[in-house]
Amino acid sequence: MLRMSTLFVRTLREDPADAEVASHKLLVRGSYIRRVAPGIYTWLPLGLKVLSKLETIVREEMDAMGAQEVLFPGLLPREPYEATNRWTEYGPTVFKLKDRKEADYLLAPTHEEMFTLLVKDLYSSYKDLPVVLYQIQTKYRDEARPRAGVIRGREFVMKDAYSFNIDDDGLDATYFTMRESYQKIFQRLGLPIAICRAMSGAMGGSRSEEFLFPCEIGEDTFVRSPGGYTANTEAVTTPPLPELDYAGVPAPEPVDTPDATTIETLVAVANDLRPRVDRAWEAADTLKNVVVTLTHPAGERELLIIGLPGERDVDMKRVEASLAPAEVEMATPEDLKAFPELVPGYIGPEVIGPQSARRSEDEPMALRYLIDPHVARGSAWITGANEPNKHVFNLVYGRDFEADGTIEAAEVVAGDEAPDGSGPLEIARGIELGHIFELGRKYSEALDLKVLDQNGKSQIVTMGSYGLGVTRTLAALAEFNHDEAGLVWPEEIAPATVQILVTGKGDELFEKADALAREFEAEGIEVLVDDRKKVSAGVKFKDFELLGVPYGVVVGRGLADGTVELRSRRTGERVEVPVGEAVAKFAEFKA
Amino acid sequence: MLRMSTLFVRTLREDPADAEVASHKLLVRGSYIRRVAPGIYTWLPLGLKVLSKLETIVREEMDAMGAQEVLFPGLLPREPYEATNRWTEYGPTVFKLKDRKEADYLLAPTHEEMFTLLVKDLYSSYKDLPVVLYQIQTKYRDEARPRAGVIRGREFVMKDAYSFNIDDDGLDATYFTMRESYQKIFQRLGLPIAICRAMSGAMGGSRSEEFLFPCEIGEDTFVRSPGGYTANTEAVTTPPLPELDYAGVPAPEPVDTPDATTIETLVAVANDLRPRVDRAWEAADTLKNVVVTLTHPAGERELLIIGLPGERDVDMKRVEASLAPAEVEMATPEDLKAFPELVPGYIGPEVIGPQSARRSEDEPMALRYLIDPHVARGSAWITGANEPNKHVFNLVYGRDFEADGTIEAAEVVAGDEAPDGSGPLEIARGIELGHIFELGRKYSEALDLKVLDQNGKSQIVTMGSYGLGVTRTLAALAEFNHDEAGLVWPEEIAPATVQILVTGKGDELFEKADALAREFEAEGIEVLVDDRKKVSAGVKFKDFELLGVPYGVVVGRGLADGTVELRSRRTGERVEVPVGEAVAKFAEFKA
Repeated sequence: MLRMSTLFVRTLREDPADAEVASHKLLVRGSYIRRVAPGIYTWLPLGLKVLSKLETIVREEMDAMGAQEVLFPGLLPREPYEATNRWTEYGPTVFKLKDRKEADYLLAPTHEEMFTLLVKDLYSSYKDLPVVLYQIQTKYRDEARPRAGVIRGREFVMKDAYSFNIDDDGLDATYFTMRESYQKIFQRLGLPIAICRAMSGAMGGSRSEEFLFPCEIGEDTFVRSPGGYTANTEAVTTPPLPELDYAGVPAPEPVDTPDATTIETLVAVANDLRPRVDRAWEAADTLKNVVVTLTHPAGERELLIIGLPGERDVDMKRVEASLAPAEVEMATPEDLKAFPELVPGYIGPEVIGPQSARRSEDEPMALRYLIDPHVARGSAWITGANEPNKHVFNLVYGRDFEADGTIEAAEVVAGDEAPDGSGPLEIARGIELGHIFELGRKYSEALDLKVLDQNGKSQIVTMGSYGLGVTRTLAALAEFNHDEAGLVWPEEIAPATVQILVTGKGDELFEKADALAREFEAEGIEVLVDDRKKVSAGVKFKDFELLGVPYGVVVGRGLADGTVELRSRRTGERVEVPVGEAVAKFAEFKA
Repeated sequence: MLRMSTLFVRTLREDPADAEVASHKLLVRGSYIRRVAPGIYTWLPLGLKVLSKLETIVREEMDAMGAQEVLFPGLLPREPYEATNRWTEYGPTVFKLKDRKEADYLLAPTHEEMFTLLVKDLYSSYKDLPVVLYQIQTKYRDEARPRAGVIRGREFVMKDAYSFNIDDDGLDATYFTMRESYQKIFQRLGLPIAICRAMSGAMGGSRSEEFLFPCEIGEDTFVRSPGGYTANTEAVTTPPLPELDYAGVPAPEPVDTPDATTIETLVAVANDLRPRVDRAWEAADTLKNVVVTLTHPAGERELLIIGLPGERDVDMKRVEASLAPAEVEMATPEDLKAFPELVPGYIGPEVIGPQSARRSEDEPMALRYLIDPHVARGSAWITGANEPNKHVFNLVYGRDFEADGTIEAAEVVAGDEAPDGSGPLEIARGIELGHIFELGRKYSEALDLKVLDQNGKSQIVTMGSYGLGVTRTLAALAEFNHDEAGLVWPEEIAPATVQILVTGKGDELFEKADALAREFEAEGIEVLVDDRKKVSAGVKFKDFELLGVPYGVVVGRGLADGTVELRSRRTGERVEVPVGEAVAKFAEFKA
């Protein structure tokens, strides 16, 4: 039994200054969490109770599917990460340090290497497989922009599981069993989830899905089609466009276009100086060339130019997903200084990519040029002429210029066709709570995890990777289960099921509240008693609403007539019941 | 139900090469733990089960005494540790790192600052107190010599609790309540414990006790007297000696003592050249001056000389405890080079301490000299004359030389008198599992944790600190509960209570074992079934003995006659029981 009179909690009426999203505000105001440093939080008693219950649900479902729990260290030596090249690849997101003997260590952002090595240590035969191991463990990632409380933290709790199979069919089977376990977890939590096709990103691998909680404040954008296609926008592929016949397209023509440094002004100038007869020029007729800076894992930087139709924006997350593990940023004027041929606002293909005068043995990569698939081969464009106040018309891709390759860079917009032909896409936002994917043999090859097969032949094991952000899921639950007044926890993870509020002064009220609490607890129902003596009923109701215990029992004026009030935080419903029947009536009230 | 056929475990018949103590060997051989780096371990499924049960017992006793659980981050910012000066004081034992913005962080070796700041954040009145908070959390310490598996690790699990009281009486009361909780924890674990007076060391504070598990392989030495005095040797104080009358002692006399660089040779030479009439010279007549190097937290080094009777060795742990937070090492010949007046083997008081020619305004600390309390004021000594092959006789402490102070430096030996007069001390070794102490106001003052008292006056809160090494306690349990063949877990923390061994080939044996397992589990008894098909009975028995599940049920040849065998791993007892009564008979068998 928890008692408000001694519970380590102090509710706040004001939102914390650094909080922007509801879950963050309410978890701080309800004393569930406290910030220690950017993206690093302490769990207070109420928060830890919710977190533990959430972990228990995850653990139960993992155990139920036959996964076995282990616990790896958070502090790991450099060597295994060297073998897989990730010591370098991880870049600035990994916290690195040295011990007193100057040996290199890292704070594990993920544990692929450790799981692989552990299975290699113990197992040696196909008869040992399949095996699925998991842990619920603290992870560290030095995020550039920690945000929204525990939604994107730098120290956070994750469940990560890995499966080990002798062959791809086995991996598929384990993948789908794990997928069902994830569905069960989110069903138990009552959290709606969109399962999206995803890129496996820096991890390598093939089959890959994200479990997104659809939500306005989410950082991930995903799409869905009427025909059931669901994907993270990073994973959406553009259906290939047919090559166009450019036989009738005149030769490229440079045109003075003063002050046309934006697509909008360029279209206006084009319609003014070179009007079309069939229709007006549109943004879709212009080819925009966007310069980005890549920072490769080892630290070297590269300028890269991306060409896409002027009516589309670049989606940096799609670009990043395509270019991982490099980090990508928009190039700054400073970045451009070393390349005087790049005239801001007037960049065109004629000086970049395969056309670049800088291409040499020494600098084969200089000004790499990638084209978004919305640019069809054979299509003609208005684009920069690489001189101030000048554009070129009728520049044909495949005739007048080439690129170094294609890249999914343009933002996906509502109405785009799903790549599987299942209809126009709708765009939504969400928070990524889980990610499952077939990792394949990347780590088992790098770390030489082999077992003997049925024929006594040595075989590389194939792996699956299954992550679930535990602290982030807690935040998503808070996000999904709140109203203006505060949190409204689902019963399975609430810090208590019933909050008994004493709203009056007589000792008999407090005694009755205690007796009731014991009755509830005898039925296995967890109780938080608000037994504070000098706190008004108004404050107690406000705290009840803020803390989010799903049901309330008010022991107050009605007690003189032998009644208490049951309240549902979720529905707002209230009923007076005889105090002697409170526990029995509560079962009906809930139902 | 656990099944050996799928359990992630592979027992080893050979001891691991790097293991010296039984618990380390057996935990590795039984696949409870695996080493990842020095002092850093992974917990495998069986190990994690035992660890979780141990954590549950600790949690239950903490909750029972009213402590509230929280969870602090492992990665902490520098600032709070600056305020208490511990960023520097901790020295090389703390892992430090920088984030991507070059901000300083540390991996928490302990969380005093965080607990203090959290209470300061939430509480403001004496009415809020007392409060006791605790966490069960991963700690990081860059030990110079990690050893013995998880006994001294660099990443380990600790329960740390802090109490906050308005006054000293309250702190005393909380201290004793916590002391009882610790006693209950170790009683539940069946682990014998010596509660020893201790130094609070680098932590500051006053009342301080360690919970030691007495054990030969322990790193801590403690003493006990027939009258019940128990103390860590670091905390043993030497009863003060009365001052001697040196009126009859002749003036100091330098004597040539060729090759007398050890106490043994010096005593022989003295008896040879200057025999006493009343008795022979003994080591106890010589004053040994030992040079140590102090490394202060900020990094500066200092030579310090300790004087003690020649028949006693220096106990570096006692010296370290006295000089904390400085680190102490024996000085090397290299260290002595800057001080030509220190002639190795012939160092005497006449050139050190207050007698040092180096004492000046600029260098007041040079060659500080501290005297062990076994050297009485007024006593006469044979000691070094600061020239090669020369000692001085009749050098009287307080007449011919002074020291800068006293230090408890000499080793405590069996037969020494207890400081409280409770008789001669016996020496024993142990592993420190817990440490409770009254921290007082060190942290609350440094971090300004004040509350308003009954009179509206601001008061500094007083704190208690209560640590318990969870992973180390697990190792102690393994150390205490093993025999030649393997581990023998106590039921409360065993990975399972009953191991069912199928020793035969018929399908009916495996089916019966499964049915029996379900019967046991229906009674709430946890079962590990050894259902491996191509494994011999001999291997199964060996694994049963190694893994340490306390009871076995053998389903084998007897089944034809309707019986199974119950075995106790602890007593070796075996009984045949009818298979239909196995569960009922098991209750009797255990009792």
